[in-house]
Amino acid sequence: MKIGFLGLGQMGAGMAANLLKAGHEVTVYNRSLAKTEPLAQQGAKVAGTVADACTGAAVYSMVADDKALEAMAFGADGILASLPKNAIHISASTISVALSEKLTQAHAKAGQRFVAAPVFGRPEAAAAAKLFVVAAGAPAALAECAPLFEAIGQRSFIFSETPSVANIVKLSGNFLIGSVIEALGEAFALTGKAGVDAHAYLDLLTSTLFNAPVYKTYGGLIAGGVFEPAGFAAPLGQKDIRLTLAAAEALNVPMPIASLLRDRFLTLIAQGGETLDWSAIGKLAAKDSGQ
Amino acid sequence: MKIGFLGLGQMGAGMAANLLKAGHEVTVYNRSLAKTEPLAQQGAKVAGTVADACTGAAVYSMVADDKALEAMAFGADGILASLPKNAIHISASTISVALSEKLTQAHAKAGQRFVAAPVFGRPEAAAAAKLFVVAAGAPAALAECAPLFEAIGQRSFIFSETPSVANIVKLSGNFLIGSVIEALGEAFALTGKAGVDAHAYLDLLTSTLFNAPVYKTYGGLIAGGVFEPAGFAAPLGQKDIRLTLAAAEALNVPMPIASLLRDRFLTLIAQGGETLDWSAIGKLAAKDSGQ
Amino acid sequence: MKIGFLGLGQMGAGMAANLLKAGHEVTVYNRSLAKTEPLAQQGAKVAGTVADACTGAAVYSMVADDKALEAMAFGADGILASLPKNAIHISASTISVALSEKLTQAHAKAGQRFVAAPVFGRPEAAAAAKLFVVAAGAPAALAECAPLFEAIGQRSFIFSETPSVANIVKLSGNFLIGSVIEALGEAFALTGKAGVDAHAYLDLLTSTLFNAPVYKTYGGLIAGGVFEPAGFAAPLGQKDIRLTLAAAEALNVPMPIASLLRDRFLTLIAQGGETLDWSAIGKLAAKDSGQ
Amino acid sequence: MKIGFLGLGQMGAGMAANLLKAGHEVTVYNRSLAKTEPLAQQGAKVAGTVADACTGAAVYSMVADDKALEAMAFGADGILASLPKNAIHISASTISVALSEKLTQAHAKAGQRFVAAPVFGRPEAAAAAKLFVVAAGAPAALAECAPLFEAIGQRSFIFSETPSVANIVKLSGNFLIGSVIEALGEAFALTGKAGVDAHAYLDLLTSTLFNAPVYKTYGGLIAGGVFEPAGFAAPLGQKDIRLTLAAAEALNVPMPIASLLRDRFLTLIAQGGETLDWSAIGKLAAKDSGQ
Repeated sequence: MKIGFLGLGQMGAGMAANLLKAGHEVTVYNRSLAKTEPLAQQGAKVAGTVADACTGAAVYSMVADDKALEAMAFGADGILASLPKNAIHISASTISVALSEKLTQAHAKAGQRFVAAPVFGRPEAAAAAKLFVVAAGAPAALAECAPLFEAIGQRSFIFSETPSVANIVKLSGNFLIGSVIEALGEAFALTGKAGVDAHAYLDLLTSTLFNAPVYKTYGGLIAGGVFEPAGFAAPLGQKDIRLTLAAAEALNVPMPIASLLRDRFLTLIAQGGETLDWSAIGKLAAKDSGQ
Repeated sequence: MKIGFLGLGQMGAGMAANLLKAGHEVTVYNRSLAKTEPLAQQGAKVAGTVADACTGAAVYSMVADDKALEAMAFGADGILASLPKNAIHISASTISVALSEKLTQAHAKAGQRFVAAPVFGRPEAAAAAKLFVVAAGAPAALAECAPLFEAIGQRSFIFSETPSVANIVKLSGNFLIGSVIEALGEAFALTGKAGVDAHAYLDLLTSTLFNAPVYKTYGGLIAGGVFEPAGFAAPLGQKDIRLTLAAAEALNVPMPIASLLRDRFLTLIAQGGETLDWSAIGKLAAKDSGQ
Repeated sequence: MKIGFLGLGQMGAGMAANLLKAGHEVTVYNRSLAKTEPLAQQGAKVAGTVADACTGAAVYSMVADDKALEAMAFGADGILASLPKNAIHISASTISVALSEKLTQAHAKAGQRFVAAPVFGRPEAAAAAKLFVVAAGAPAALAECAPLFEAIGQRSFIFSETPSVANIVKLSGNFLIGSVIEALGEAFALTGKAGVDAHAYLDLLTSTLFNAPVYKTYGGLIAGGVFEPAGFAAPLGQKDIRLTLAAAEALNVPMPIASLLRDRFLTLIAQGGETLDWSAIGKLAAKDSGQ
Repeated sequence: MKIGFLGLGQMGAGMAANLLKAGHEVTVYNRSLAKTEPLAQQGAKVAGTVADACTGAAVYSMVADDKALEAMAFGADGILASLPKNAIHISASTISVALSEKLTQAHAKAGQRFVAAPVFGRPEAAAAAKLFVVAAGAPAALAECAPLFEAIGQRSFIFSETPSVANIVKLSGNFLIGSVIEALGEAFALTGKAGVDAHAYLDLLTSTLFNAPVYKTYGGLIAGGVFEPAGFAAPLGQKDIRLTLAAAEALNVPMPIASLLRDRFLTLIAQGGETLDWSAIGKLAAKDSGQ
């Protein structure tokens, strides 16, 4: 399949490489050209503009946030202006429901198709083609994308014909991770003040009921208390909770733990935590308790 | 080892049976005599009073709450009045930190020893000797109890010389489960209102980041929406959150998610949910959102 | 003073009338022409377009929300394109901090001046020239506006040279009212379930420590339980809490009661309360408690 | 009327003095004898024991908390053992609903009567006979107490035949004050970070919608930032919120602002605020926001 790939950050670089390995013909674009080189060595064509990467049957986008995707999608040289009729824009970024809906309409109006296919997994999973793909869109478009999803992930989950539903599912997943961080933070604050060793406590949790990657990863970070360098920085976590709350507001769904997480991120950042990993909110309960 | 066992509910019956299987000489006591029969058939002696079960080197207690344990422990015919000097009272119940501290002092004054050893696991795990034992107390006493813990569980975790610390750890675990229920409830409310099928959504979660028993069990209950018969009834969950908050208050630790859970249980019970499984609080976010 | 007045809703109509009474030469504009008639009878000139009302030394705007003000301010025929150099745009609407900042910059760029001067008070206070004016902007501009503030209000409060600060102060006031509604709702839920008559209880509160208009007004609405017709509709209250939270987020200030109010409004509206007075959130605690 | 008065703290001393002034025959008791002297000079008889003050038609108690009242009420020499048949125990202290119910039953069993009559007002109001009395109990008993209430207060509010209802009303009042402190704290945090002067802001609030003593008093304390010496110490505020939550729990009423206040007091005290005025929780939002 002849496709474009926009955005070669930590995630995108791995995804594009795996698409190449699977035999697809990939034209890559990145704002700073340097990041295209490793891909070029793996056989990718390099596009100098967004438009040059939008000439195939599909174009994948994987960027940091709404702003970055809007900058690529709209405008004279953007995805919408460049993509052929009937081609598919596959958005893998964690973006707002509102932007996903806007893109759905804009692509329809332009005679193109839009699929939302955000992913779960960290850069290592992207490199190893072990991502989980959460996809939504028109069934025919999804069927055409299936080989691409297979190339980058270990499993795909199809949820709806409405693309933005995939974005809601992705956001809800990050909300659930945030809630684990906060709950662990409160439990560590309680047991820590009672004199329990954090690592021994975490060992108990993850050997028993909470034997899941998310408890091991984030519990380890909170117990260790080292939040730099950030694997996923606090402002990104804050952004995802903001987008979750915006999606929930549009549907009139109150989510009190999400509201609490919002307040935690504001506190963390107000107190200078901008460069820390988002799991640093898991220290605030302990801090409140005088530890 | 010659021991007594007090309380043959769903959990206690399995634990006592496994102590017998391991070759210990067990005298069982239960308020209603009927429940002692299956144990008698497995070789247990049956005591007619609490005192009659308190003649060995140790006595295990496994009852519903503080009130039940206080009724057994104090008074003319109770554990404290009956246990030989230097014998050990092993408390496996989920009780308050305050009662655990009170028992620690009372047993010390009586020349006896007290060990707190609550367990994680449901009745099936108790029957299969697959419990996780969380224990705290004087090292020598814990060493003597080790064979008993091995008989009932798959692994023991020792935390402190202060017995009540084991109770805090146990309570914190139930708090973490409650926080999973609430967070899942909010995520289901959001995705459900966006039209996502609850079972498909849960499949995604438990196939990926949240691949842990607690998400499968409670996610399944919330997705299914069937909360009767209760595996663990709402008033018991409410009690454990109450005890968690009491322990946290004694240590000056604010736990906002625990406060939220407290309010959720009050709402559930005010609206007639007394007989439901505690995971029914996972429907309140959806209800608030008009689903 | 020769001025324009944009927006003749319940508030604007009273304000414009009082400006006329004070001897100012007022040209009024309203989207639907019908509302201009009573003012014309009181001596106002009627403008057919926004631009026609923007020919004097100042123009007052008093509209429902950001969207309405943006529609009037920007565009070929808008305030910015029409107002003479050095003239003042006085914004009395409850708008976002972000829009206030945007207008400040846009007017400066256009060689005009911008003053934010939102008001506290209901339509009756507007009609009686009893509003409280909360103003911020360049001191010289505020000095020129002083006679206008005097014409519509009983007292003016000057807060800052930065116009948007007046908007923050106004929003914080509505947040405080919302917090009174919620706290009263919880107190009514508690005392009501204990059998206390709501009106007798309110009489106690407002005869003693809580002898303030806000307790009388909103306490009376909650005790009476009649929320239609709405004096200030739930979506407007929700909007003000949303703008408060947005302003707080921009400054990294966590406001947990504001977060709670946000969730309350979502619940109220999800359950069909869109047409009710915003004080209807004061019934949700009672509802949660099964009353 | 011949009565006893137990507890001559800041509040009780003023109340007893006013009962004397109104012509009642008052026998006073206080744990430390020194405080009885000023009353003796005003004509009071001094009792050496609780029992000696319990010989008239009624006895008033005004002490710090449940523990103090329980110590006076029960035991061989206590109120219950000493009061004549049909005499009335009037409890003015802010105590728990549970203790109020326990006293109601105990006095009934002893052939005595119990009236709960807590008061609103600070020591100056007690000295000036300007308290507000909130009373509940059997109508006949309340009628007999009316002259006593008149002697100490400016107005009485009768709520129920069940004494504990008066305690709930009193607690709900303190909860409402606490909610004002927290809401003001959040509003000050927001406006303060925007550069608004706290005293100017408070002047606006208390000149307009929030023209009530509670806003002036507590707003002034938060704006001033001086919380020592405490007018009402943080642990007392914490106790009243604890009792409010206990009363609400017994009635299955979730009160999220009360839960938030609970967490705020834990934070304040964990961080060393034990000796501060309870309004010091009004600084926590500012602190969280990095101010």
